[in-house]
Amino acid sequence: MNNVLLTNATAKKLYKYATEFPIFDYHCHLSVKEMYENKPYKNLTEIWLKGDHYKWRQMRTFGIGEEFITGDASDYDKFYSYISMLETAVGNPLYLWSQFELEFYFGVKYPLTRTYAKKIWDAANAVIEKTSFSPLTAIGMSNVDTVCTTEEIFCDLRYHRLLREKNEIKTKILPAFRGDRAINIDSPEFAKNIAKLGDVASFVIRNLEDMEDALCQRLDAFKEQGAVTSDFAIEGLNYKKISREDADASFRAGLKGDLEKVDYDGYKSYMLKFLLKECYKRGFSAQLHIGAMRNNNTLMNVRLGADTGFDSVSTKPYQTGLRDLLDDLNAQGALGKTIIFNLNPADNAYIGTIIGCFQGGQDGVKGKIQMGAAWWFNDTKIGIQNHFKALSELSHFGSFVGMLTDSRSFISYTRHDYFRRLLCSYVGELSEKGEFTKDQGVLRKVIADVSYNNAKRFFTIFE
Amino acid sequence: MNNVLLTNATAKKLYKYATEFPIFDYHCHLSVKEMYENKPYKNLTEIWLKGDHYKWRQMRTFGIGEEFITGDASDYDKFYSYISMLETAVGNPLYLWSQFELEFYFGVKYPLTRTYAKKIWDAANAVIEKTSFSPLTAIGMSNVDTVCTTEEIFCDLRYHRLLREKNEIKTKILPAFRGDRAINIDSPEFAKNIAKLGDVASFVIRNLEDMEDALCQRLDAFKEQGAVTSDFAIEGLNYKKISREDADASFRAGLKGDLEKVDYDGYKSYMLKFLLKECYKRGFSAQLHIGAMRNNNTLMNVRLGADTGFDSVSTKPYQTGLRDLLDDLNAQGALGKTIIFNLNPADNAYIGTIIGCFQGGQDGVKGKIQMGAAWWFNDTKIGIQNHFKALSELSHFGSFVGMLTDSRSFISYTRHDYFRRLLCSYVGELSEKGEFTKDQGVLRKVIADVSYNNAKRFFTIFE
Amino acid sequence: MNNVLLTNATAKKLYKYATEFPIFDYHCHLSVKEMYENKPYKNLTEIWLKGDHYKWRQMRTFGIGEEFITGDASDYDKFYSYISMLETAVGNPLYLWSQFELEFYFGVKYPLTRTYAKKIWDAANAVIEKTSFSPLTAIGMSNVDTVCTTEEIFCDLRYHRLLREKNEIKTKILPAFRGDRAINIDSPEFAKNIAKLGDVASFVIRNLEDMEDALCQRLDAFKEQGAVTSDFAIEGLNYKKISREDADASFRAGLKGDLEKVDYDGYKSYMLKFLLKECYKRGFSAQLHIGAMRNNNTLMNVRLGADTGFDSVSTKPYQTGLRDLLDDLNAQGALGKTIIFNLNPADNAYIGTIIGCFQGGQDGVKGKIQMGAAWWFNDTKIGIQNHFKALSELSHFGSFVGMLTDSRSFISYTRHDYFRRLLCSYVGELSEKGEFTKDQGVLRKVIADVSYNNAKRFFTIFE
Repeated sequence: MNNVLLTNATAKKLYKYATEFPIFDYHCHLSVKEMYENKPYKNLTEIWLKGDHYKWRQMRTFGIGEEFITGDASDYDKFYSYISMLETAVGNPLYLWSQFELEFYFGVKYPLTRTYAKKIWDAANAVIEKTSFSPLTAIGMSNVDTVCTTEEIFCDLRYHRLLREKNEIKTKILPAFRGDRAINIDSPEFAKNIAKLGDVASFVIRNLEDMEDALCQRLDAFKEQGAVTSDFAIEGLNYKKISREDADASFRAGLKGDLEKVDYDGYKSYMLKFLLKECYKRGFSAQLHIGAMRNNNTLMNVRLGADTGFDSVSTKPYQTGLRDLLDDLNAQGALGKTIIFNLNPADNAYIGTIIGCFQGGQDGVKGKIQMGAAWWFNDTKIGIQNHFKALSELSHFGSFVGMLTDSRSFISYTRHDYFRRLLCSYVGELSEKGEFTKDQGVLRKVIADVSYNNAKRFFTIFE
Repeated sequence: MNNVLLTNATAKKLYKYATEFPIFDYHCHLSVKEMYENKPYKNLTEIWLKGDHYKWRQMRTFGIGEEFITGDASDYDKFYSYISMLETAVGNPLYLWSQFELEFYFGVKYPLTRTYAKKIWDAANAVIEKTSFSPLTAIGMSNVDTVCTTEEIFCDLRYHRLLREKNEIKTKILPAFRGDRAINIDSPEFAKNIAKLGDVASFVIRNLEDMEDALCQRLDAFKEQGAVTSDFAIEGLNYKKISREDADASFRAGLKGDLEKVDYDGYKSYMLKFLLKECYKRGFSAQLHIGAMRNNNTLMNVRLGADTGFDSVSTKPYQTGLRDLLDDLNAQGALGKTIIFNLNPADNAYIGTIIGCFQGGQDGVKGKIQMGAAWWFNDTKIGIQNHFKALSELSHFGSFVGMLTDSRSFISYTRHDYFRRLLCSYVGELSEKGEFTKDQGVLRKVIADVSYNNAKRFFTIFE
Repeated sequence: MNNVLLTNATAKKLYKYATEFPIFDYHCHLSVKEMYENKPYKNLTEIWLKGDHYKWRQMRTFGIGEEFITGDASDYDKFYSYISMLETAVGNPLYLWSQFELEFYFGVKYPLTRTYAKKIWDAANAVIEKTSFSPLTAIGMSNVDTVCTTEEIFCDLRYHRLLREKNEIKTKILPAFRGDRAINIDSPEFAKNIAKLGDVASFVIRNLEDMEDALCQRLDAFKEQGAVTSDFAIEGLNYKKISREDADASFRAGLKGDLEKVDYDGYKSYMLKFLLKECYKRGFSAQLHIGAMRNNNTLMNVRLGADTGFDSVSTKPYQTGLRDLLDDLNAQGALGKTIIFNLNPADNAYIGTIIGCFQGGQDGVKGKIQMGAAWWFNDTKIGIQNHFKALSELSHFGSFVGMLTDSRSFISYTRHDYFRRLLCSYVGELSEKGEFTKDQGVLRKVIADVSYNNAKRFFTIFE
């Protein structure tokens, strides 16, 4: 990819150094089952477009019919439709991501225009076939140290065990505990999810005590499989303290689907706090992903299900609630390492300042409360640059744990390359302008820390 | 204007190409009556300052007394006051707009300082007199293909007919249907407006059924005059579904001014949806202008009336309501081409992502749901650039329908020049940096599409 | 500091001119008692780190233990900890601020790395000792024309009198009236604060009439000591008009701590308006600081008290309330010169447009309603640049009253240097790009006005 995104001489020098570091992917949605089965891909469409709702959205925006996105059109026609859209996708992250992916994984450097579509298709497929390109091929090529895969509360972690036993890759594949299903008591699937949790826990969950026991059992099981982190999605948050009795009553009502008797804010606050405390006890850091409004298109949600490209930024208030949650945990000595991701960039100033109120404390951890890397819709050039700016000016850049992939795709590790280029350009520019040091040792330390070392340290459990 | 706003070599090349395209002005507030009457202007103040509340606000901010703005001071003194303010209006869009207007329409290139005020005045007025400069002179000079003028629900479209019969200009002048007066049931003018609507419809409007009939009749009349688009101003939006009976009850109460019996959210939601469905049936695209808080200064509102420079950005919540509205229309197969304009740039990420949830569908239209061009207070260099960035990163830039004027002034078409320069610089810079293609054909296609072709296609009704 | 932050040739030229102007510090938190006592500082830690919660926050974020921040560690160890953090604080304002302070006040130019920590310490302390560096030394070096110190409603202004009598500095030190304690009726300290006010006023405050009398007495006393401005902190604002009787009832209930009987929104609105009107009568301009959420960390608030680094941006709604307040004052002819500071930069567009609705009026003051300089967490390079951009595009840059320090530190006057560099770069860049004039006279006028003249004029009471 030559020097794209490397905007100054210092950046070019630092970038060479940055590429020496492996990737610590502390949050993603890769399927461990797919890794275990490790089936070679049929063609570029299968690996590149199947399941990637970032790409689907853009295709729909370009007016491409669903047939060519999630429908029955041929794989080549789907691919061609994608390239057609990409051709005029000025400034969209998919443009460079697609280039990075084609070049890094398949050695394909053709321009992203319709004229070259057939050549891209043929060249990439030749490599896919020749190398029997599979999930583990991709991971193997990507220099990934550790991958934390997001797993539900009722995940039996079977594929994590099987994959470890198979012992085919050096990369550590660890489960990350996603707590949402325990919290979203208003979901129509709540009772079903709790039943699944009971199945894995091997007992029937009838009340809050059972629920807490089951969750603790799962947390222990996750920890046994090497887990180091947890994850919670939050849209709005009205933090409300209720008694354990009231939480129990809400829980029982929720199980029965008797939502009128559920104190939603109360239960959610109770359970979120419970899980964060239990995570803290086990040394897990917590990731809070705040501000996504999901499944906005009812018609398509019915047709295609969740995670198919119909989500948006939310503007529901959560700010005072988040403060109250952090304050409550902190007052109880149970606030651990926490990363807060916000989807609405208009909240950067809020996040950048609220984290500063809960740093340090008894633990003395560097960068204990983090402003998470530019997330989802913000995982773009300008999104990342804006995150850098807010983080730098409002918090401490050198303590940042850096990039994750958050992806369902095995070939999205080039996003770390994209990120590191922006990182080197950002730091390099400030240095060249005399707004930060020119000391090469310090510059390299920052690059190494943000590229890898900080994450490695942050996600290690010292006991 | 030389190369101002053209920041790179590619931009300069593309700009030459961009200027070849006419203007498709799909939203403005020009008076068709003034076009029909086509009276020559007296002097620069009449054409430049009369009725332009953008300029008035700035003059007030600079401390200029109302006498020199809307009062009885001489036209020269008003002009001189404006130039005095402009002299130190660093970075304000009026600075370049004023330069563009003086140079393009009157060939005046003097610096915008008090020293040159008299020279500017004399030179511009000489041209005005010599050419009998009139509304149609301005339009004739501006290479405008089509103008959609915003007209109220009770507009009889008489001047549209008369102007067409007069057949003096090539530019198509089409009415655009502004639905607000049907929706704003809490306005003190509601009953009066409905009475006016009844007058044009030639029957008395007593209930919701009458109202719907009258509105449909108007929509048909607009369509007969060539209308292709509609327009709605929304401040907050709490989308609430109510029955037709309840909407009727609210409507009748509203007519009587019995506001306590009006379900405002319910009626507004009902009527907005009704009109959007009827517009969809007729092939009209919809423009939603969201987030203006108007007439904030009671004293001046009483003195000068609306649209005199006392409006601001609103922060009233509308986001969930907008989602619900779009989802409801979409579920009923009645969501047509829609442009959403937001006045608060802090909402760019919300708008840029929510539109992505309702693209494509049965119509397969390219860029069906648009993030409208930087509007009103955002119609500035940085406002436009921020819009470009959000649009690029969150949606599909190549599908963008581009610029409009939204103006009351006949000489504001140079804003398209301003816009196209920024467009060429934006695309050119990404291309030069290797973040977008260097293929000249693709680059030119993007420029042509965003300058003109996309709007032309978007606002054509295929039947 | 060489040419740091001066990014173009015009800026370098303008900057030389900008440095000729003194500082008009219209809002700060300097202690007049410390000025009066004027004790020489012991060492760099005492002057640089003691009481500076900006620095403390960053140290905590870096994982430094409280011992080295507010605890018992040695002054050198505290200093060393600070430098350790600073070393990798890429892009944080403290990085350049620290350099500016060390260089300007102590002539220390060593790099900000741990390697040089001891050298910095020794060099700065040598100057501190040699010059008996004291508060007045700092002010004397800073070319400050006027300092407005923020003082509570119950301040007896004794030190202002004593300092004036002592007659040791040329700088005018004026009290600024901070009205919050009269408004925050829900504070646990309310009764105590009112009692203190009664003590200074020499009568017991039993009801609203007493309260208003006491406040007027204080305002007169402030005016006697040269006060020209007042200041109010606002988090949320729901402007609600209540009768004087109801305000009185709320006040009496508040005095007794009977908060259930207090109409908080009503009382707050009443008292805010009362004080703003009384300030207006006396010619005081008003400063509104909007949007800080304070003391978020209960644990540390108990341990260290307020203003120790645990505050954040607030997102509580105030926008409609602010509009209503300004409109109400304006309608009564009692809206004076007002500066509105917002802590959430996402509100820049709101502030930049709402101020435009209340300009001019009977007073015809240039820049009557100001969008305050980038405040607190926004007092950063990008924060200031974003403020410039919003101000330029939405209001009138040449009318801006410019920078203040808002600091507790006597050596923070270099922030004006930082600000003026950014100012010259901003104006210079627009000029060089042809987006603003190249006329040197006009450019210099803008720089002079924003650096000093506008503030000098704005804060003068003409009677």
